[in-house]
Amino acid sequence: MALWGARFSSDTNELLAKLSESISFDQRLYAQDIAGSIAHVKMLAKQSIIPKEDAKQIIAELGTIKAEIEAGDFEFKESLEDIHMNIESRLIERLGDAGARVHTGRSRNDQIATDIRLYLRDEISEIKILLSALQKSLVTVADADDQAILPGFTHLQHAQPVLFAHHLLAYVEMFSRDMGRLEDCAKRMNVSPLGAGAMAGSTFPMDREFVAKELGFDSVSQNSMDAVSDRDFAVELLSALSLIMLHISRLSEDIIFWKSQEASFIDLGDAFCTGSSIMPQKKNPDTAELGRGKAARVFADLNALLILMKGLPMCYNRDMQEDKEPVFDAVDTTKLVLATFAPMIESIEINQANMATASSEPALMATDLAEWLVKDGMPFRTAHHRVGSLVAWCNENSLALDAVSLEQMQISIPEAKAECLDLFSAENSVKLRDITGGTAPKQVRKQIDYWKKQLK
Amino acid sequence: MALWGARFSSDTNELLAKLSESISFDQRLYAQDIAGSIAHVKMLAKQSIIPKEDAKQIIAELGTIKAEIEAGDFEFKESLEDIHMNIESRLIERLGDAGARVHTGRSRNDQIATDIRLYLRDEISEIKILLSALQKSLVTVADADDQAILPGFTHLQHAQPVLFAHHLLAYVEMFSRDMGRLEDCAKRMNVSPLGAGAMAGSTFPMDREFVAKELGFDSVSQNSMDAVSDRDFAVELLSALSLIMLHISRLSEDIIFWKSQEASFIDLGDAFCTGSSIMPQKKNPDTAELGRGKAARVFADLNALLILMKGLPMCYNRDMQEDKEPVFDAVDTTKLVLATFAPMIESIEINQANMATASSEPALMATDLAEWLVKDGMPFRTAHHRVGSLVAWCNENSLALDAVSLEQMQISIPEAKAECLDLFSAENSVKLRDITGGTAPKQVRKQIDYWKKQLK
Amino acid sequence: MALWGARFSSDTNELLAKLSESISFDQRLYAQDIAGSIAHVKMLAKQSIIPKEDAKQIIAELGTIKAEIEAGDFEFKESLEDIHMNIESRLIERLGDAGARVHTGRSRNDQIATDIRLYLRDEISEIKILLSALQKSLVTVADADDQAILPGFTHLQHAQPVLFAHHLLAYVEMFSRDMGRLEDCAKRMNVSPLGAGAMAGSTFPMDREFVAKELGFDSVSQNSMDAVSDRDFAVELLSALSLIMLHISRLSEDIIFWKSQEASFIDLGDAFCTGSSIMPQKKNPDTAELGRGKAARVFADLNALLILMKGLPMCYNRDMQEDKEPVFDAVDTTKLVLATFAPMIESIEINQANMATASSEPALMATDLAEWLVKDGMPFRTAHHRVGSLVAWCNENSLALDAVSLEQMQISIPEAKAECLDLFSAENSVKLRDITGGTAPKQVRKQIDYWKKQLK
Amino acid sequence: MALWGARFSSDTNELLAKLSESISFDQRLYAQDIAGSIAHVKMLAKQSIIPKEDAKQIIAELGTIKAEIEAGDFEFKESLEDIHMNIESRLIERLGDAGARVHTGRSRNDQIATDIRLYLRDEISEIKILLSALQKSLVTVADADDQAILPGFTHLQHAQPVLFAHHLLAYVEMFSRDMGRLEDCAKRMNVSPLGAGAMAGSTFPMDREFVAKELGFDSVSQNSMDAVSDRDFAVELLSALSLIMLHISRLSEDIIFWKSQEASFIDLGDAFCTGSSIMPQKKNPDTAELGRGKAARVFADLNALLILMKGLPMCYNRDMQEDKEPVFDAVDTTKLVLATFAPMIESIEINQANMATASSEPALMATDLAEWLVKDGMPFRTAHHRVGSLVAWCNENSLALDAVSLEQMQISIPEAKAECLDLFSAENSVKLRDITGGTAPKQVRKQIDYWKKQLK
Repeated sequence: MALWGARFSSDTNELLAKLSESISFDQRLYAQDIAGSIAHVKMLAKQSIIPKEDAKQIIAELGTIKAEIEAGDFEFKESLEDIHMNIESRLIERLGDAGARVHTGRSRNDQIATDIRLYLRDEISEIKILLSALQKSLVTVADADDQAILPGFTHLQHAQPVLFAHHLLAYVEMFSRDMGRLEDCAKRMNVSPLGAGAMAGSTFPMDREFVAKELGFDSVSQNSMDAVSDRDFAVELLSALSLIMLHISRLSEDIIFWKSQEASFIDLGDAFCTGSSIMPQKKNPDTAELGRGKAARVFADLNALLILMKGLPMCYNRDMQEDKEPVFDAVDTTKLVLATFAPMIESIEINQANMATASSEPALMATDLAEWLVKDGMPFRTAHHRVGSLVAWCNENSLALDAVSLEQMQISIPEAKAECLDLFSAENSVKLRDITGGTAPKQVRKQIDYWKKQLK
Repeated sequence: MALWGARFSSDTNELLAKLSESISFDQRLYAQDIAGSIAHVKMLAKQSIIPKEDAKQIIAELGTIKAEIEAGDFEFKESLEDIHMNIESRLIERLGDAGARVHTGRSRNDQIATDIRLYLRDEISEIKILLSALQKSLVTVADADDQAILPGFTHLQHAQPVLFAHHLLAYVEMFSRDMGRLEDCAKRMNVSPLGAGAMAGSTFPMDREFVAKELGFDSVSQNSMDAVSDRDFAVELLSALSLIMLHISRLSEDIIFWKSQEASFIDLGDAFCTGSSIMPQKKNPDTAELGRGKAARVFADLNALLILMKGLPMCYNRDMQEDKEPVFDAVDTTKLVLATFAPMIESIEINQANMATASSEPALMATDLAEWLVKDGMPFRTAHHRVGSLVAWCNENSLALDAVSLEQMQISIPEAKAECLDLFSAENSVKLRDITGGTAPKQVRKQIDYWKKQLK
Repeated sequence: MALWGARFSSDTNELLAKLSESISFDQRLYAQDIAGSIAHVKMLAKQSIIPKEDAKQIIAELGTIKAEIEAGDFEFKESLEDIHMNIESRLIERLGDAGARVHTGRSRNDQIATDIRLYLRDEISEIKILLSALQKSLVTVADADDQAILPGFTHLQHAQPVLFAHHLLAYVEMFSRDMGRLEDCAKRMNVSPLGAGAMAGSTFPMDREFVAKELGFDSVSQNSMDAVSDRDFAVELLSALSLIMLHISRLSEDIIFWKSQEASFIDLGDAFCTGSSIMPQKKNPDTAELGRGKAARVFADLNALLILMKGLPMCYNRDMQEDKEPVFDAVDTTKLVLATFAPMIESIEINQANMATASSEPALMATDLAEWLVKDGMPFRTAHHRVGSLVAWCNENSLALDAVSLEQMQISIPEAKAECLDLFSAENSVKLRDITGGTAPKQVRKQIDYWKKQLK
Repeated sequence: MALWGARFSSDTNELLAKLSESISFDQRLYAQDIAGSIAHVKMLAKQSIIPKEDAKQIIAELGTIKAEIEAGDFEFKESLEDIHMNIESRLIERLGDAGARVHTGRSRNDQIATDIRLYLRDEISEIKILLSALQKSLVTVADADDQAILPGFTHLQHAQPVLFAHHLLAYVEMFSRDMGRLEDCAKRMNVSPLGAGAMAGSTFPMDREFVAKELGFDSVSQNSMDAVSDRDFAVELLSALSLIMLHISRLSEDIIFWKSQEASFIDLGDAFCTGSSIMPQKKNPDTAELGRGKAARVFADLNALLILMKGLPMCYNRDMQEDKEPVFDAVDTTKLVLATFAPMIESIEINQANMATASSEPALMATDLAEWLVKDGMPFRTAHHRVGSLVAWCNENSLALDAVSLEQMQISIPEAKAECLDLFSAENSVKLRDITGGTAPKQVRKQIDYWKKQLK
């Protein structure tokens, strides 16, 4: 019979037991659950709600239980449903009446809300470290290959030449905003629900602020019903993780394309690729593909959580037990992907020659020609039109833009001058974009240095 | 070094190994993988692609491996990535050259596409059985309580009285369409991809039709690139499961509401409820809540699969490994929920008195009054307006609809006659709806009998 | 005051009016709504529920209203909420009592369920035609360029050479399964809910089968509560459309990649590309990008519908009004994308030379070498390993696979013979894959001919 | 021919024109587009990139265009694709060369990134005002009915009595966290992308900081590729709006349940309900139902955006045009729902008698009895068990908890004393929960006063 089962005439149906158990996945909260119980029990004793001697015994026994769990010696029982009941049951088994006092003035509703906040607070810290390490890897590669120029793309079509380093730093920017979101989320989450009880508060003279302080919370929740009902902190975190994974998926797409035989801009370390069971020549960019694929999983975890919570009446509903698996999955996935990407990025070997060939294709400098004409006095839209006509003329005549003579150029652009013929250099093109945030080597160097300092 | 690793200069990075292994979840495909290999090897021998003697050895050894797996004696290795490589590796270990022939003319790409189709074909059969059992439970309860009347709701407001049995049968209809979707899906899925190889087919003279027949497939795929690239069968199945879970979620919502103290229309067996760690009086409808909550999970599994596959270039990409976990999760979840719901439904005890009181509330018969007036010659919209005015008058005068005298009724409905006063009976109201699909006891009995026969 | 408003003491709040109106989007159902009303009214007269003369007038006036709507002369009013009330209100305005009889024996609940089924039945027919046209375009291009060979990819890495036609036909297969799903869906949807009323059926002696026949339904719903509550047909359709769009997104990805300067395998007609406001040289594959992007929208429409319906109690709830916009959006989007893709596909110009160069890269024939060794007696896994070692040796020595001498090859593959040196031809490679579904020209020709006949 | 079309040999296909136009939905950005152009042009003149006189003319004409748009006199053309090209085209038409200079040094890529940030910045301000108004409505109702007690629920089962005001304030807390998320999002979004150009920056000596200041941005983006590629600000906003709508959906669920005939705890103003086309008595809580339903839509908008952006290579891809409709839809929906909910909440009339009856059900005080026993020295788990046994005994004997005598109580709870019989009062029960965040009238009053001050 369950600890809550005095009013029940029969045991839980086996299928329901299987459907409703959470111990298989919430056992990972054991440390938080124990820390929460210790703080709670200290307070109960301080407020004379339970005997000081019982508190002492409970705290000692919780230490033992923690050690047993970490040593793999604790037997979790599905019939005891969850981490809370598994631990409370053991306390009672060992301590009798003292153990039976641990749950005074609390409910599993405020207990799980506490556990999961403590847990996610720690996980966010770890994710921030991993994110920072990935930023460092990107900056390291950018720093090492700071002169390489490759085509910048829009619509997967050659657009304008950019520094390879500039391209990598774009991701450093994205991840730095992700960092900000994690920080905001951690801050908003760091509020203690303990004391909210089942949903109405408690009839005991509890010192909620004391417990909050013990557990490192910034404050206590101001409404007991809200405290046990809302899971916005989990949704907010999964939104932040979804954006991290979105950025990972785009970085992956770039890497997969760069490594295709068609682009051949980079190669990856063998350790970050796998082969084929049938095709002996294959070396596939699996890390990047999995990074891209696992974004789907994290987005779906977010979606699951939103769908789950929609339209639930107040306060706790059993549906809410389904919050944990998507949260754990999103956290685990993001951590593993970030951890794997940092060394994968560092394993990149660039093929500067191929990059150079591709980015020297003169059509990439068409904008430079148009902008040169503007500097010479022509309105931009006219300049754009003139150069567009030149492109069309070149296509018809199967000539590259840099292969036309001045006279040929002047068919489409009467205003063209000899200097125009010198614009078709990728090196020159990137150098010209010397503006805050632009791809000029000077600007990019400034950013590399900024990030090296920042990420030290 | 991996079996595919001859061209690699370094081992797989440990983090990537962890990120990319699938053996932790695809080991459940062992039986299908082995069945597929046996059929494949038989064909290879029949076509003289490999020696008959080798085929014999492989088939025998596959039997041993299967037995070992089922006995828990087979050690799955993460370093061997997946179920295919774990088994092939063991074959080679035990049989040497013979084992090294098993992968002739195939790739993991067509192999996994085969395994998962075989697996899902079986799972669909099981789900159909569980669905049918749930339908039976609903019909059984409907049959037993075929006279009980409860309020039918729209907008969670009392609408018109209906038979409780009629309400339950609505779900039987929904589940029967779900059954149809499962059948369509199974049929469309039952096509053999084996022989597609990595993506281009094979240079060996393979007999694909033979293999298909051995494995119970209806036909063979007609395009090797499609065969290894598409996962539409999995998406289609998850759509069908999502609809099952959608129906479960609505049934759950009804049950949860009916069991609230406010409605008190039903109680559930103790075995399908759980209690509270703090509130001794609680008996919560956890089964229904979890059914509702788990719908979120299955919808998210479908979402994950669609997101995963979107925009992937042909053919196989490593992202696609992420297809299995959502599929398995959706299948497992649906099965467990269906299995638990059947006995939960049978544990329903109705409170016919409370149902009767609620459905006797005369406002539920307002439509009957309007329709009576129509039968008496009044246009429906006028009748609706008249009765609406009567409702307003009753509200102002704090009178129930069946407490007004004929004179009072005639203030709002001059055309009212004495017979109108007799319309406010729920029994009468349901009896009047004697039309195909209507809630009249005669109609509902016909449906109960139909389903009893159908589900035998 | 609304037509249903007799019991209300105040008008609808303006904000709610705006929040709850559907006429801005459900007016597109006018033809179905009118057809449904005509069938309903015919039946009412036939069953003597309303006077025959009134029925005649209503039917005539409905014709007038339809003509007015189609001429743009009908003023839809937000205050009348929806298409049903806009039309009924006009009937009453014009016909008085006769018009006030149209709503006899029905509710907006069964009316909208009817309208939307009729509407989607027609839309499915149109989508099938568009899908078939796209298949034809693919077959036409495959037929015209039936000899072109390009690299087949897995993991966006060169895998094995395939016929370009074979690649296109893979999509024809996918779309043919989509067709099957549309047919199954249309069939399951084609059931008449009319007569279910608000949710309990009707007290009038209605002939539901007559109405169903008039409207081309295959049968009538057997449970009134189910008939007005479930939206599984819409979910099923959106699942089918999601799969169509998933296939579109993958085709798009292939096209975008093929058109990149890196691959340069194809060009697209100017009419299916757009340029840049700043870069004069740009010609972007917008059609394909939008096709890929719009898949997101349709997946989200499906998600919206599932989320919407989850956990709603029986029967109709106002939330369900939100079903229409995602359904309409998904249908419109899919139709427009399919219509645009057919001519876009036909505008493809292939660059056979670039395809040939890429697919002649000898590493693509590594599998052929391994399979040759198998035919010569070597176990496959050994052959794979030998060829892998050769690839590694070539990489170290910066040699292409087809540039090694027999002696060099024998360093890695002692068993190699002179014939092995002749395997590095893409033409030969595809020819060898002469198996059902394989990429051999003979097989592909068979498929092209099959589809040409099928799609005539 | 499009403004970018010089290199094209044919016009855009009509279907693509329809597929790709955005003017039908991005015209709402006109004010931001014009403001952005004015700031840009001022800077161009200041930096002597274009003639000062031209700048003057452009700025004046932009003013005229804005006035025309607002007067409904501006004809938007689908063939001009988007808001940017519609306005630039008009400038050129009116000003010739001067107009042709407006697009100097920018691209539609940085232009749209600017427009949408400016737009969302304003919308966030408006949403914050609406959110605050809704909070005020909740506080007003809580303040007015600050003594009403209703059952608090978990699992939709009676749990413990709570103040109605306490329940409402839980939502005020949720919305206040939503406010914080909106603020964080607005802050992170307020960075100027102008100057990033197509993706590489600009060759003109632009003063990006000047433009940013003119437009009220806090800073300028530090990487041009990031500036035009990422849409994280939109995803972050839609996540925040999803949480608002999640809270709305739960508030709706509570309201719908409270208004059911079964609960009858509240009524809503007629103006916030609608009736039935067939059932004259109906008064449905449509506002709440639509609020709940529209949450699905906003969640799907977020889902759409994540799916859309996943795996896109850098930088701009045409898929990204699909970002706007979900963003606009989510913003519009949230605003309309918030605006409607504030007065709907204020229209609530509570039925204090029904609330009191329901919350006086003695089982709601079972926890109080257990906690009394704890105060008397019993370990909590024992007390919980004793009271559970009492509940079971009462169920068997069909007695309410407050109907048992002390002797009867002592059968299950030998330690019970006379005082125990006095615990079954809801008033007493709430009063006892006098702890921070608890439901005691004193605590709730403190919170009401806090929020009244806060929201002034």
